[in-house]
Amino acid sequence: MTTKVFGTRVPRLDAVDKTTGRTKFVGDMILPGMAYAKLVHSSHPHARIKRIDTSRAEKHPGVIGVVTHKDVPDHLHGELIWDERLFAKEKVRYQGDIIAIVAAEDQATADAAAKLVKVDYEPLKAVFDAEQAMKPSAPLIHEKWKSYACLPSPKVMPVWQWQKENPRRNCSWSSIVRKGDVEKGFKEADVVVKGVYTTPMVHGSPIENHSVLAQPHDDGSVTIWTATQVPYVVRMTVAAFLDIPISQVRVIAPAIGGGFGAKCQAWVEPHAAALARKTGRPVKLVFNREEEFSMAQPRHPAKMYVKSGIKKDGTIVAREATIYFDTGFTSMLSAVQGSLGALTAAGPYKIANLKIDVYCVYTNKPSCSAVRGPSGPQLNFCIESHMDELARKIGMDPLALRLKNAYEEGDIAHNGQKLHAVGLKQCLVKAAERIGWKQPKAAGGDGALVGRGLSCAWWITAVGFGTGALVSIEQDGTVHITTGTVEHGTGSTFGTAPMIVAEELGVDVSQVRVHASDTGIAPFDYGGVGSRTTFNLGHALRQATQDARRQLMANAAAMIEANPDDLDIAQGMIFVKGTPEKGIPFAIVAQAAPFALGPIVGRGSFNTMAPPFDPKYGLVEGSLFVSAQLSYAAQAAVVEVDGETGNVKVTDFAAAHDVGYSINPMCVEGQIEGGAVMGLGIALSERVGFDGEGRMQNPSFLDYKIPLCCDVPPIKFDIIETNNIDGPYGSKGIGEPPIVPTTGAVANAVADAIGVQVTELPLLPERVLAAMKTVKKR
Amino acid sequence: MTTKVFGTRVPRLDAVDKTTGRTKFVGDMILPGMAYAKLVHSSHPHARIKRIDTSRAEKHPGVIGVVTHKDVPDHLHGELIWDERLFAKEKVRYQGDIIAIVAAEDQATADAAAKLVKVDYEPLKAVFDAEQAMKPSAPLIHEKWKSYACLPSPKVMPVWQWQKENPRRNCSWSSIVRKGDVEKGFKEADVVVKGVYTTPMVHGSPIENHSVLAQPHDDGSVTIWTATQVPYVVRMTVAAFLDIPISQVRVIAPAIGGGFGAKCQAWVEPHAAALARKTGRPVKLVFNREEEFSMAQPRHPAKMYVKSGIKKDGTIVAREATIYFDTGFTSMLSAVQGSLGALTAAGPYKIANLKIDVYCVYTNKPSCSAVRGPSGPQLNFCIESHMDELARKIGMDPLALRLKNAYEEGDIAHNGQKLHAVGLKQCLVKAAERIGWKQPKAAGGDGALVGRGLSCAWWITAVGFGTGALVSIEQDGTVHITTGTVEHGTGSTFGTAPMIVAEELGVDVSQVRVHASDTGIAPFDYGGVGSRTTFNLGHALRQATQDARRQLMANAAAMIEANPDDLDIAQGMIFVKGTPEKGIPFAIVAQAAPFALGPIVGRGSFNTMAPPFDPKYGLVEGSLFVSAQLSYAAQAAVVEVDGETGNVKVTDFAAAHDVGYSINPMCVEGQIEGGAVMGLGIALSERVGFDGEGRMQNPSFLDYKIPLCCDVPPIKFDIIETNNIDGPYGSKGIGEPPIVPTTGAVANAVADAIGVQVTELPLLPERVLAAMKTVKKR
Repeated sequence: MTTKVFGTRVPRLDAVDKTTGRTKFVGDMILPGMAYAKLVHSSHPHARIKRIDTSRAEKHPGVIGVVTHKDVPDHLHGELIWDERLFAKEKVRYQGDIIAIVAAEDQATADAAAKLVKVDYEPLKAVFDAEQAMKPSAPLIHEKWKSYACLPSPKVMPVWQWQKENPRRNCSWSSIVRKGDVEKGFKEADVVVKGVYTTPMVHGSPIENHSVLAQPHDDGSVTIWTATQVPYVVRMTVAAFLDIPISQVRVIAPAIGGGFGAKCQAWVEPHAAALARKTGRPVKLVFNREEEFSMAQPRHPAKMYVKSGIKKDGTIVAREATIYFDTGFTSMLSAVQGSLGALTAAGPYKIANLKIDVYCVYTNKPSCSAVRGPSGPQLNFCIESHMDELARKIGMDPLALRLKNAYEEGDIAHNGQKLHAVGLKQCLVKAAERIGWKQPKAAGGDGALVGRGLSCAWWITAVGFGTGALVSIEQDGTVHITTGTVEHGTGSTFGTAPMIVAEELGVDVSQVRVHASDTGIAPFDYGGVGSRTTFNLGHALRQATQDARRQLMANAAAMIEANPDDLDIAQGMIFVKGTPEKGIPFAIVAQAAPFALGPIVGRGSFNTMAPPFDPKYGLVEGSLFVSAQLSYAAQAAVVEVDGETGNVKVTDFAAAHDVGYSINPMCVEGQIEGGAVMGLGIALSERVGFDGEGRMQNPSFLDYKIPLCCDVPPIKFDIIETNNIDGPYGSKGIGEPPIVPTTGAVANAVADAIGVQVTELPLLPERVLAAMKTVKKR
Repeated sequence: MTTKVFGTRVPRLDAVDKTTGRTKFVGDMILPGMAYAKLVHSSHPHARIKRIDTSRAEKHPGVIGVVTHKDVPDHLHGELIWDERLFAKEKVRYQGDIIAIVAAEDQATADAAAKLVKVDYEPLKAVFDAEQAMKPSAPLIHEKWKSYACLPSPKVMPVWQWQKENPRRNCSWSSIVRKGDVEKGFKEADVVVKGVYTTPMVHGSPIENHSVLAQPHDDGSVTIWTATQVPYVVRMTVAAFLDIPISQVRVIAPAIGGGFGAKCQAWVEPHAAALARKTGRPVKLVFNREEEFSMAQPRHPAKMYVKSGIKKDGTIVAREATIYFDTGFTSMLSAVQGSLGALTAAGPYKIANLKIDVYCVYTNKPSCSAVRGPSGPQLNFCIESHMDELARKIGMDPLALRLKNAYEEGDIAHNGQKLHAVGLKQCLVKAAERIGWKQPKAAGGDGALVGRGLSCAWWITAVGFGTGALVSIEQDGTVHITTGTVEHGTGSTFGTAPMIVAEELGVDVSQVRVHASDTGIAPFDYGGVGSRTTFNLGHALRQATQDARRQLMANAAAMIEANPDDLDIAQGMIFVKGTPEKGIPFAIVAQAAPFALGPIVGRGSFNTMAPPFDPKYGLVEGSLFVSAQLSYAAQAAVVEVDGETGNVKVTDFAAAHDVGYSINPMCVEGQIEGGAVMGLGIALSERVGFDGEGRMQNPSFLDYKIPLCCDVPPIKFDIIETNNIDGPYGSKGIGEPPIVPTTGAVANAVADAIGVQVTELPLLPERVLAAMKTVKKR
């Protein structure tokens, strides 16, 4: 592809504002007459509510109003499975469940008044472990689960029907893969290896806490500014919970201070909206950090059982896996988690016989949801550690083992999908090469043990649901993009989108503006989830820009009396092809257009249809969706393990990612670096701890350890291009993939250093030390 | 045309909010940190500025900032002719010229501080009359006129060049018509009649005074909420005056409390924006009623000389007219006034020989601009009074005289335009019939003199410059229109537009929402001027709705496995033509669309190209534009004149208007009634008075008399449909025409009662009495 803008290092349009502190977040916003809100939380993990008394809070000076379950429609809702209530009514299901929301003239008054809401509880037996929660003795958390509804989409309903017909205790979602005959496969194997892996609850840790500002209007409608990745989902959810048409809800997502999936669902927007509608005042609700940790949809803890059969030549002949994801007190996006678990538990390998059971299980803990690469870091740790165990057992090089089994162009995946643009092997070879896989290991500093590890992964990119885009040309030559997508830091909306428009129109990127994430002005977009924005918006935007270009050319043709088909644009001029010297400036055509053939607005609309599952290749029950396209990645790490303390230091790190085609390399690199750093945190230090009563133990950045600069080595990255024929300009998404393979690479490097796999994340010094002792014992 | 929605009586979408007081105007808006502004006005009509001292005002407690000419770019601008400055620099040119603007913490402080700005003047000789101002002895108001620029449009520039090459003292614009040979025509005539007519300055009198709220942003851009009919013109003007790109200016016109042309130009928006940018604070500026009267672009006073030659059979063979419009201290839209004067001075009559000179002349008075039907009421009074004089001179019935000379289908107008859908004669016959033209006159009450009068007119409707529209279909089935047009009370945007969408989509009007007049979200529209909105928006909207419909049908076809071309919509269902029972609900398709083929957004774009002037039919020098289509009207009045006091009471009134096709009859009727009432005010009571120093004498509704309910008889209206082939669904504009023929009808009725034409408006009792005395003398 001959391009002028693509591939160049264009800064994101929001870069200067973000780095100079000029960006305004929801927390910075003030409206006239604004009230301040505070949530009232449950102090029990599981209890029956006997009485809620808000009278003292309501009488407190400065309090404007209190909303409880009595003030909102008495029904359940949710983005996918309808198991959520705005306010606890008969039961609380975790430490933090929302009882009420209080509005006051200032924050201190709201905080004080929230403490005056009195709740009488009758405590119930609680359960805090997913595997335990599936046992017959476990308390039922959602007794009426089978009566719950699910998103009324024709594509989802049969799957939900299947869930209801195959109920498992406390299980909110199951995804079941059956391919071939695993028992037969295990018999064919030379070696069968089993493993059990555990990962804790981990938080997305956006620096900006959840913030919502709701403005009620006289006609009953409401405008909501919220830090979200999914304004259209928020709109739908607010409307559903409050029983108003979605056209009565406008959701605006201004700049967002990190999302990472912690903001990929509607959450307290309906609560703020209900309070605003009741009090008639704009209401601002901002989480404190403790609330952010305990309420903002962390990553599912996982318990993962895996068993594989392998031949001595490295052929994996069978794999069986049972995965328990702890989904907390509501299911949120556990349907997504389960479906992706069915992808990541198989791994990007040709395995003839597969049996995978993924369970998302209710517990009396915070609700987990789809944090960046949901299921990815957990299952990569499990499957890729397990791959190295397999390699060790048959004495094969881990890279060679992976290359032998890795998917290739034209392979049929276990969901029946024919794979295209499969850069997996290139990624593996490149990542290994970058850390000197074939060279001898260097000695560690201070006598540390040195290890090297590899990991690979596949990931979704073309996740469905629609995206629209508008491209209009202003009279001063400025080109405006209007899109419902959210710039939550990946660069898709403010970095890549302007380049697509600039490339298609032959203008400079500095001429392009983006107006994003306002349901009141933009066409629908499902949201900034599933590494889908560049893929979906890219398609919609190409359409919209080409539409605008046609109108521009028609205007220009009328002005210079030429045939529109004969015209081209370059360097700000429109001219008859072949005679670039006789052109008319782009800006003049733009200025005159409204007075010539009319204002220029182009439109585009796109949806990715997931490929139909073909049952002849196996069975994926409970699969909500698959991705029309997949992306591939490999990462490699070198670690030094302190033999005395067990402390792990990552000294070298390489990430190779198949992105199809890199439109804005700076955005791609940013995602790779950022994702790998998050992955390193999951591998080495991050975990949310709970006491025996389900109370979070470390809800602060003092006690919850995300990586610091000194913890992170320079990330060597390689962008592999495979020119995905279905992607816009050949591209794939890159938002999530970089976080997926990191845990496996680091874990394998540690195992290489100490001689044994550590089976629980994070790889804390004490765990590494304990594992080292098991080696010494042998 | 078979229609379901068109022609039904659908209330405007804003009707309930407007009538219940829920509508928010700019004056109601408050922003955090908002400052209040006050203008400092000139106290001389014409003077050199020696010094401006703002120091005392700046030091006044509570003052935030003061802006004068020193704070803004030193250049001239204007919508058409660039003769305006934001703040007076070397000279003031009228009592009220803007010296400075002051921002303070509250309005009282701003008002007080404005009085502390000290200006030293050197008074200059002033001129307050247009005809006088053209004389060699008159002071020059714009000495450097010939260096001024004009809107850099290729279509306008040659006309401006012509203006510069044909300079006339203090003349801002001339429109010159030459057709045939008037001297030859007068020789052929049996009777030649001369007349001189005068009309005063009249105000548009919106109930809402001009209000602006400007919010500065960190990046130098500014958002402006303003009561305007022309947000895109405001955007362009603010950008030009402040030397920033138009993409840095967002203009939002919320509900507007009447415009009538008083708000059809940018005015103090740049002043408020400059103050906001200098102080870094949102700034609100609201005119008081005195400022509204003296600053908000009233209707041009006119002195009109007319001379016609007529044969005894009623054929008008020649007409000569010289018109002086007093345009005040800047030209504003005098180019429009002049061009339209060239239309209205000829009248809708076949006259072989024409010589018309229209001059828009600078004086030291407030700047006049394009109040509803600019030039119409003035010239209708002149020409139609003159027509009755002609009729009297040859003893012909005034209706018969008009019918004999009236334009008909296929005639070529004096600008070379071939006329189509000419409902003029139907209007004349209908209006006359409605007041019992052929029946004997009833006796007046209390011995009053009874008179009957007729008048007719033509008017523009398809005035150019572009309009875009978007139509998107929401997931709950709501259909959204996004348009840059302004709902300034005519119903085009909130009454007619939703019907067009409902008709095209087969949905109920209650499902349609309109998002209008925000340059930040909507495609360009030139503004609510020239009776153009239904015409232009109608075309753009039809395109956009049909585009949305195609997308909707494609989605529906995919869902029910049909061919999109075979589908139809009715009563909320989409079905295969011929089998309406097997349909899919519209709302289900809308809900699923983003997940099927993608979000639904339709787009449309339209511009009316004025027909080229054909010189073989005559010469219209200085004509800025003509209308691609014309509309026609006739009105008739019955009056009773009190023989003792000269007081005129209108006892019966009929208005017949050729609207092409009536989409929303309630909106059409509202415009006819409202326009006629305004016309009655101009005919009978309205005038802005000045003292010898150019100081306005009656800037309040106590002293400036608009019609009260008791002054207005029931208006009998008739909607004539001529199915204009070029209009959207056959329609023409109706915003301005109803104000145009009223003055002539009332004046002719008074003349019929008292036996002589009164030649000066308004028809005050003392003038009528004076005219009656001239009859008695004879």
